[in-house]
Amino acid sequence: MIKDIDREMEKNNVRSMIVFGDSTTGNPDLCYVVGGSLPRGGIYLKRRSNSPTLIVSNIDVGSARKGRVGDIRTYSEYGYERISARYERDEARARFYERIIRDAELEGPTVICGRNDTSNTLLLIDALRKKGVKIVGEKSPTILETARETKDRYEIERLRSMGKKTARVVERTRRFLASCRVRGSKVYQRSKPLSVDAVKKVIGRLLAEENIIAPEDTIFAVGRRSSDPHYNGESGDIVRAAEPIVFDIFPAEPDGYWHDCTRTYTFSSPSRRVKEMFDAVLDAQTSALDQIREQVPSSDVMLNVCKLFERKGYPTVRSLAKGNKEARVRGFIHGLGHGVGLTIGERPYLSLYGKAPLKKNSAVTVEPGLYDPKVGGVRIEDIVIVGSPSENLTPISKDMEL
Amino acid sequence: MIKDIDREMEKNNVRSMIVFGDSTTGNPDLCYVVGGSLPRGGIYLKRRSNSPTLIVSNIDVGSARKGRVGDIRTYSEYGYERISARYERDEARARFYERIIRDAELEGPTVICGRNDTSNTLLLIDALRKKGVKIVGEKSPTILETARETKDRYEIERLRSMGKKTARVVERTRRFLASCRVRGSKVYQRSKPLSVDAVKKVIGRLLAEENIIAPEDTIFAVGRRSSDPHYNGESGDIVRAAEPIVFDIFPAEPDGYWHDCTRTYTFSSPSRRVKEMFDAVLDAQTSALDQIREQVPSSDVMLNVCKLFERKGYPTVRSLAKGNKEARVRGFIHGLGHGVGLTIGERPYLSLYGKAPLKKNSAVTVEPGLYDPKVGGVRIEDIVIVGSPSENLTPISKDMEL
Repeated sequence: MIKDIDREMEKNNVRSMIVFGDSTTGNPDLCYVVGGSLPRGGIYLKRRSNSPTLIVSNIDVGSARKGRVGDIRTYSEYGYERISARYERDEARARFYERIIRDAELEGPTVICGRNDTSNTLLLIDALRKKGVKIVGEKSPTILETARETKDRYEIERLRSMGKKTARVVERTRRFLASCRVRGSKVYQRSKPLSVDAVKKVIGRLLAEENIIAPEDTIFAVGRRSSDPHYNGESGDIVRAAEPIVFDIFPAEPDGYWHDCTRTYTFSSPSRRVKEMFDAVLDAQTSALDQIREQVPSSDVMLNVCKLFERKGYPTVRSLAKGNKEARVRGFIHGLGHGVGLTIGERPYLSLYGKAPLKKNSAVTVEPGLYDPKVGGVRIEDIVIVGSPSENLTPISKDMEL
Repeated sequence: MIKDIDREMEKNNVRSMIVFGDSTTGNPDLCYVVGGSLPRGGIYLKRRSNSPTLIVSNIDVGSARKGRVGDIRTYSEYGYERISARYERDEARARFYERIIRDAELEGPTVICGRNDTSNTLLLIDALRKKGVKIVGEKSPTILETARETKDRYEIERLRSMGKKTARVVERTRRFLASCRVRGSKVYQRSKPLSVDAVKKVIGRLLAEENIIAPEDTIFAVGRRSSDPHYNGESGDIVRAAEPIVFDIFPAEPDGYWHDCTRTYTFSSPSRRVKEMFDAVLDAQTSALDQIREQVPSSDVMLNVCKLFERKGYPTVRSLAKGNKEARVRGFIHGLGHGVGLTIGERPYLSLYGKAPLKKNSAVTVEPGLYDPKVGGVRIEDIVIVGSPSENLTPISKDMEL
């Protein structure tokens, strides 16, 4: 939560924080501290235990006011134009930052945060260090990663809203799929064999209706290739009736919160093997959802899911750690979940190594899956807000047969 | 162009280059050198005058092979698992990079590139410097920014394709608008007043049909508020018949190339003032498009556009520089254009200060505009590939009246 920043600064012996970037898009740390959108970015300053200042260009003051920072200033107030006219670009930038740092009375140790060009930013940091500013790097998790791990109330509200929008897209996609005709092993949309390309266009239209986007594509993996959890589904792929379809969608609001949901479908009765995999995954997910609550170490939940799958005869990443190389491609071959917020992959990570207790108001995916290169994949994924009990944000039916 | 990297490394006295990141999405430098998509990122290594190496995790070798790097290795080949098991996360990362750097015989001065978390990356850089790796920051433009400024043939092909896709979206949006009914000063979609929200949903659907996305929204600014070039148009806004509409769309392929196009529309005959602004902008754009070719300094073209507008009585950024403060909000109040490629804003920038000659195979927007807070805005924007003559990539009619 945003209020954790002070505590984390103290814990990490950091006195001052600068967060900057040329846009909030693709810069979750800046987006987080600003609490809104700045298409041309800005500079956020904070001394420990003091309220922050946000510096933007004149034309962006209106956008900045929509965010959470009370004290908004402009580049001009720090003499930006004068400095820019006198020095070449990189020297001007270093002098401008020095001016800001002195004026805001920032003192070291200082961290500089935000997602930026590594090489050109290093030039700035080296120049500031030469001018005596004590800039330190941060271990992982950084102060802002830790703050972002637990969600504020208005963030949970955004995540809930994204869950509902995603649910409408998935249910309407399901309805579109159910409207296709099955003839023997084949599936037809009107007179044409149903292609992954056609399905993805429908999904794109439905996302547009909700004013959300899927910046990293959507997984619609059909048949055996769905046994690769990272296979997206390509435009040449054709849907077949009895094969499993892994449909994993991860949309976001522009400069906003993400959702992440997976369902597994088949058009007609699946083979016994796929049915067994599906039942095992649904069992595992139901059980994991029951176990996930604050104070429980995620490794406990992950371990229980591994044991459940192993009892049913499937290899798991746990058996891989013990030398079962088959578990590289068959069985439960990935982690149980990950945090979601202003990014689609953040803390906490639910794995065998996640010994730290889950924190209240984290948002995590719960996504067990089983894979078999000879058959295909099955995965079911919801997002929950950790609590006691946890709140499921993905109100979508889990039935396999369309 | 990609082959310029060696020349720029030599010019900047850089011996080795590392480009890294946790994804190619939002990381144009990594996307560029990889020549494809790596959703979980990778590490690119290059010694000057030598061919590069790309290191990815085992599961991403297939994706890496689709890119331009011939020599692909895996993290495991550099002992990633062993190092990770022995040291905590940040120490393991520093040791892993040290191992890679020694193994590839990278020597200083070395640049580390890519868009990454500034604070945690600084920890890595400081650790490597302590181990004796000579890492230097880069002045702007960086080596990769300069390389990316001129496009390779296959990049121009992608940009052309994005121009065609964008053209279909714009022309179909225009057709949708033309299908709405005008009654007096009002515009109706069926029985409802036409809202910006409704138009944006249509645009979203059309983008989905083309499999492209608009990650930073679309500008559909109506009436007086279109006089702010940064006003996107909000969902409460209602379209009125005689007012100008600035429609600026900037879509991209996922992990790919962008397009950027603006048209200005009105539903019925505009006021004399808007008509005059439109004619002046169209004149200015036609003239600028004629002038833009290789070897011409962009400042010459910008200056000519300012003169053209000033002759017709409009203030410009040039008069602002001379103390005419009105030119902050009225007249031609922004630059003439900017580069486009794997980002929507990159080199070259067409401004009064762009004294360097335009380079063959740059891709730039040409987007003069006029703004008046009492009336609204007019802007027309195409993308051209600089040459002699230049090639226009935006085949879309410029008529104002729908």
